[in-house]
Amino acid sequence: MSDLHDVIPAYTPPDFSIPKLANAPVAQVAPAPADGVVPANFHATSNHPEYVHLGEGRWLLAPESRMDSVLLLRGGELEVVEPRRVRAGDPVVVGRSENGEEGIFIHIHGFHAISTAMPDKFSFRNRGTRETPFSRSYDELYKVLRHDRDEGYIVWVLGPAVAFDSDSRKAMQGLIENGYCHALCAGNALAVHDLEAARFGTGLGQDIYTQSFQPLGHYNHLDIINEVRQLGGISTAIEKLRLTSGIMFACERTRVPYVLAGSIRDDGPLPEVIADTYQAQDAMRVHARKATTVIAVATQLHSIAFGNMVPSYQVQPDGRVRPVFFYIVDMTEFCADKLANRGSAQAEAILTNAQDFIVNLWNNLKLL
Amino acid sequence: MSDLHDVIPAYTPPDFSIPKLANAPVAQVAPAPADGVVPANFHATSNHPEYVHLGEGRWLLAPESRMDSVLLLRGGELEVVEPRRVRAGDPVVVGRSENGEEGIFIHIHGFHAISTAMPDKFSFRNRGTRETPFSRSYDELYKVLRHDRDEGYIVWVLGPAVAFDSDSRKAMQGLIENGYCHALCAGNALAVHDLEAARFGTGLGQDIYTQSFQPLGHYNHLDIINEVRQLGGISTAIEKLRLTSGIMFACERTRVPYVLAGSIRDDGPLPEVIADTYQAQDAMRVHARKATTVIAVATQLHSIAFGNMVPSYQVQPDGRVRPVFFYIVDMTEFCADKLANRGSAQAEAILTNAQDFIVNLWNNLKLL
Amino acid sequence: MSDLHDVIPAYTPPDFSIPKLANAPVAQVAPAPADGVVPANFHATSNHPEYVHLGEGRWLLAPESRMDSVLLLRGGELEVVEPRRVRAGDPVVVGRSENGEEGIFIHIHGFHAISTAMPDKFSFRNRGTRETPFSRSYDELYKVLRHDRDEGYIVWVLGPAVAFDSDSRKAMQGLIENGYCHALCAGNALAVHDLEAARFGTGLGQDIYTQSFQPLGHYNHLDIINEVRQLGGISTAIEKLRLTSGIMFACERTRVPYVLAGSIRDDGPLPEVIADTYQAQDAMRVHARKATTVIAVATQLHSIAFGNMVPSYQVQPDGRVRPVFFYIVDMTEFCADKLANRGSAQAEAILTNAQDFIVNLWNNLKLL
Amino acid sequence: MSDLHDVIPAYTPPDFSIPKLANAPVAQVAPAPADGVVPANFHATSNHPEYVHLGEGRWLLAPESRMDSVLLLRGGELEVVEPRRVRAGDPVVVGRSENGEEGIFIHIHGFHAISTAMPDKFSFRNRGTRETPFSRSYDELYKVLRHDRDEGYIVWVLGPAVAFDSDSRKAMQGLIENGYCHALCAGNALAVHDLEAARFGTGLGQDIYTQSFQPLGHYNHLDIINEVRQLGGISTAIEKLRLTSGIMFACERTRVPYVLAGSIRDDGPLPEVIADTYQAQDAMRVHARKATTVIAVATQLHSIAFGNMVPSYQVQPDGRVRPVFFYIVDMTEFCADKLANRGSAQAEAILTNAQDFIVNLWNNLKLL
Repeated sequence: MSDLHDVIPAYTPPDFSIPKLANAPVAQVAPAPADGVVPANFHATSNHPEYVHLGEGRWLLAPESRMDSVLLLRGGELEVVEPRRVRAGDPVVVGRSENGEEGIFIHIHGFHAISTAMPDKFSFRNRGTRETPFSRSYDELYKVLRHDRDEGYIVWVLGPAVAFDSDSRKAMQGLIENGYCHALCAGNALAVHDLEAARFGTGLGQDIYTQSFQPLGHYNHLDIINEVRQLGGISTAIEKLRLTSGIMFACERTRVPYVLAGSIRDDGPLPEVIADTYQAQDAMRVHARKATTVIAVATQLHSIAFGNMVPSYQVQPDGRVRPVFFYIVDMTEFCADKLANRGSAQAEAILTNAQDFIVNLWNNLKLL
Repeated sequence: MSDLHDVIPAYTPPDFSIPKLANAPVAQVAPAPADGVVPANFHATSNHPEYVHLGEGRWLLAPESRMDSVLLLRGGELEVVEPRRVRAGDPVVVGRSENGEEGIFIHIHGFHAISTAMPDKFSFRNRGTRETPFSRSYDELYKVLRHDRDEGYIVWVLGPAVAFDSDSRKAMQGLIENGYCHALCAGNALAVHDLEAARFGTGLGQDIYTQSFQPLGHYNHLDIINEVRQLGGISTAIEKLRLTSGIMFACERTRVPYVLAGSIRDDGPLPEVIADTYQAQDAMRVHARKATTVIAVATQLHSIAFGNMVPSYQVQPDGRVRPVFFYIVDMTEFCADKLANRGSAQAEAILTNAQDFIVNLWNNLKLL
Repeated sequence: MSDLHDVIPAYTPPDFSIPKLANAPVAQVAPAPADGVVPANFHATSNHPEYVHLGEGRWLLAPESRMDSVLLLRGGELEVVEPRRVRAGDPVVVGRSENGEEGIFIHIHGFHAISTAMPDKFSFRNRGTRETPFSRSYDELYKVLRHDRDEGYIVWVLGPAVAFDSDSRKAMQGLIENGYCHALCAGNALAVHDLEAARFGTGLGQDIYTQSFQPLGHYNHLDIINEVRQLGGISTAIEKLRLTSGIMFACERTRVPYVLAGSIRDDGPLPEVIADTYQAQDAMRVHARKATTVIAVATQLHSIAFGNMVPSYQVQPDGRVRPVFFYIVDMTEFCADKLANRGSAQAEAILTNAQDFIVNLWNNLKLL
Repeated sequence: MSDLHDVIPAYTPPDFSIPKLANAPVAQVAPAPADGVVPANFHATSNHPEYVHLGEGRWLLAPESRMDSVLLLRGGELEVVEPRRVRAGDPVVVGRSENGEEGIFIHIHGFHAISTAMPDKFSFRNRGTRETPFSRSYDELYKVLRHDRDEGYIVWVLGPAVAFDSDSRKAMQGLIENGYCHALCAGNALAVHDLEAARFGTGLGQDIYTQSFQPLGHYNHLDIINEVRQLGGISTAIEKLRLTSGIMFACERTRVPYVLAGSIRDDGPLPEVIADTYQAQDAMRVHARKATTVIAVATQLHSIAFGNMVPSYQVQPDGRVRPVFFYIVDMTEFCADKLANRGSAQAEAILTNAQDFIVNLWNNLKLL
């Protein structure tokens, strides 16, 4: 706790006494015309802290925000809801200005004040390229993870590449078993490849250490899917097949919750995979609401999906507001930029190989 | 028809009189132990022509094949079924050798014989890089498309980038309206961006011709989604909002069927989007079964998903076998290679910008 | 001429009557301490229009500017010189402020005024991605090239990929033969591959149309180098070997000057290649000084090198100032961004395949 | 020495007693027709072991081979010479078959025999992608480097990115100071950025740890160049400017030779940079001849240039033949594939961030 301020910047709320805000009107609502339909001129949320004026200088901060959702204002409380989940008659906040003139204020620079401690970090879009110096990013990441292991909620969003390599798979297992992962979001492929490695030592038939291809090895992939389906699920399969390693094994053993979202690319799928993509979104958002740090690795689909859901801030139980850190690890500037362009301005790109990233992270953290 | 052989290579069936095949045993089946579970030692299909020995020299060709599925052999007929769709007791072909010794033969070189007409084309993996000479690939593609417009089934698999540019969107509309598209597979984003362009002239708020960003333009995206949801669907929205251009407009007007598959990245979604990813797979496979040419553009997710479903051959109504052409258009070797590595050996990569590709294709085809 | 203003934005000189500039001191010079060494506090040039105050309100515009060079002020004239070409005692302008307070003023917004005609174009860094709508960029490019064919100086900077494909090589030949290229900058490889194609129909042994690899085809590359070396040069080789197609052929026939700059990757080299990299820079800058439009295609090395040399403006014979257009055509955002990051802010990226770009460009221009 | 065979595969010479080789004719030579010109039908070398038949079963192995060069056979000795360095009358080996029928034999599978120890490693092109499991590649690399530190010759080919990050720059310094680098090949930029970091703590004005941009920081780059030029060279500059860190500092202090090859992109250049690209090739080849392991990091230009020069084998003082290991570290499959396509078949790609690679390598090696 002592070095909290070294790691987690403090939040400066808006100064509501300035004339523009002091004189702001009360925010207006309009009823949703139908289930899953929002009224004209609806206000769409960003992932920044947004305040709604209730009158007489009372401004309410939207909790658990999410990009491209709407604000329901009911009984003096704000709820951030995806348009598809709005019900007919719900009171939706309307107005598209963001500077208070319709009673809505978006506070972009709340974490700015202590920028001397973390210069530049929150003041502009961090668009790393492969030539950006990353030493400091790593050092900060280690600090953040150590802090949030005990006092935050770390969500990993993983692409399948992490399970293809012996060392990176072990490292990810180590991170989970040592408390550095409070929830895992991934797809069918990550789980399948990881279980194939646990069962056969391969990923799509290629030995995850020696790189050699096993004869008929491509059946390993299909066989593990079939076995898990026959046994009814991952947890039972781990037990019955006596699997003792890997990412899914670690999640099951340490009771770290995971969401496996379905995609049209899937084989199988494993029984745990959520077939309905919007139910999968809902399941992912459960963790997005709690996240204090997100590390999205080697998956454009899941990274962007999760990035859309995560607010840039978190209201803590004691009412304090802290930033949510979002790291995206990928080989291409394109993926990272795409996320930033979609509005996830706080996303910090680390351009490197996913396997190396995980291995090095764990090598550093485990020494402590 | 006269130049058929110039464009479409003839198929040479296996010589079943050679000893190894003449002496092959009858293929074996085993009952599926449960719904969605296949028996041990099940045979997984490739996308190549596969023959199953019924006895006494009778070999049956699997129709409408699909990668990583199983063969149900029932009443002297073969059906290729995804494991998840197998029902308890279904007779699943078993055996993992591919050379006849278990009564299963995979015929990889069926389109080889006339390789003088199309040298090299089917003899090795065509892994184009950005420096590969593509003139001939384009010339062949034009011929194939002219042929298959009238005598084949052309499926387009489109990523959203195609709708972001004025000329490429118009070109795609031209291709559809002139018979060069028999079915369209895409995601929510393609349809949303295209309809936004029809309604507001923008893509995610950026003018699709001038590149300028409209004030509050990001609301265009959310507003068109909301309008279509309120109106109940794409077809009605086109009518009520008097939209008169674009890809979805062309599909609706010319009654070209489309499948919009859901993903966890979606906003909205539009009412036509299939939320369940495995139902979406089933809907896509309806077109994969018929496809004679596939053009997959600027979408890794949908390209790989569709590539998994498409056989490398097509059994025509008159019993003749022809190849299915599969073009993947992308900016990165990684995407094209990934598809090839997944077994879609016939996929030919064209490494270029998706917008340029569509514009040039249409500029060439429309002159005829 | 009539549509000049549609294509070429007018230039608005600085308003030297504003107090900060009206009161600016006279610019200072210091003598270079040695050959190739500049004095402390030297002023380094950008590629923007820069003015130096001579006193009494007389401001002098640097002609033929170049990034990271110095200003020599002598006899009331300014010369922009690379530090390595400075001689001991040369009067080098000193001062690092850019707003006039040391008598130096960098004028960044000179082409801003008519931004209504070309909205946004010059107002921010044009960082295209592969998903940027390019229709308008192409339309503008066609206009610019038609104008500059007759009234400008178009420089092409070409990577070797352009010569690897039959159609793109023909298209580039067409562009040169029809006046769309006033100078060509490239490396040994472009010329070698192009001459190999003229002699053998191959590029590194691969047929530039059919894509088939010739037996022992890799010797074609080495043989053409050896033949040209034996014959003493490209011009003689074209004549003696009766070559009748391609890029070098077109340059020779239409007397378009070319610079072939050496690199450590070269085979051969051809006799015309300039071995000394700084002499090569000098030869390239001859054309950079004259350029009104630059098109750099598929070469990071030569694009960045040439980008460093080209000013963002051109002082025409009648004293008017016009912008220099700089297009960079590449497959990766990384290359384009790197150029922009190095200060070539006016560079417009077109993210596509080099071969497609050339073919389409010529298909459009030749119809006129 | 004890574990030599674990790390360095043994070499199996060709079996010259097989009829095709036992009956091979004597290799023929033809005189070079002019300086820098080779005779028709000249034999071009690969980077594999090549043997020339002198008669009566005496086969001579080409030492210090190099791709795309020629063999001079004189006085019973073979010399591998670049065509540009051939002098009129030199006796050049002619013949283009590689199987002995013209007295020339290329031995591709010499390191095959012990493939059980290193399965697959030398049996096919190692084309890693970003999803390849690299754990084993790293483990082998550590072993190779420990072995070759004492008993080999390790050449690093470095792009500038390595100097942009505080930790990777320190790690590279550690590797040099601890004997893991016997020669360094790079360009002007690597040296300039490294010296800028030593002098100002920045790379192109960006702090190499905090990532913040210094005011007027872009002058740091130009100032260090000017200072080194004024002081006459890197060694003196390090002394006079009291620089105490970095890559160039480590090379100077430990007397590790370096070659800085000029390019048309250079600023400056520093006095040590070799302006003539072919003289630079010659200087690089001095180290290529001795190399037993090459690590080429984040530079396409220098990697391919050096890859062209390095044989796949090394004849050791005691006559034994060992493989030369060549690792190419880059972010894009394109660069790695390009090198492999150019014939450097033994190149093993490691797809990752250059900075991470160096940091992790040193973290592992320094613990020993």
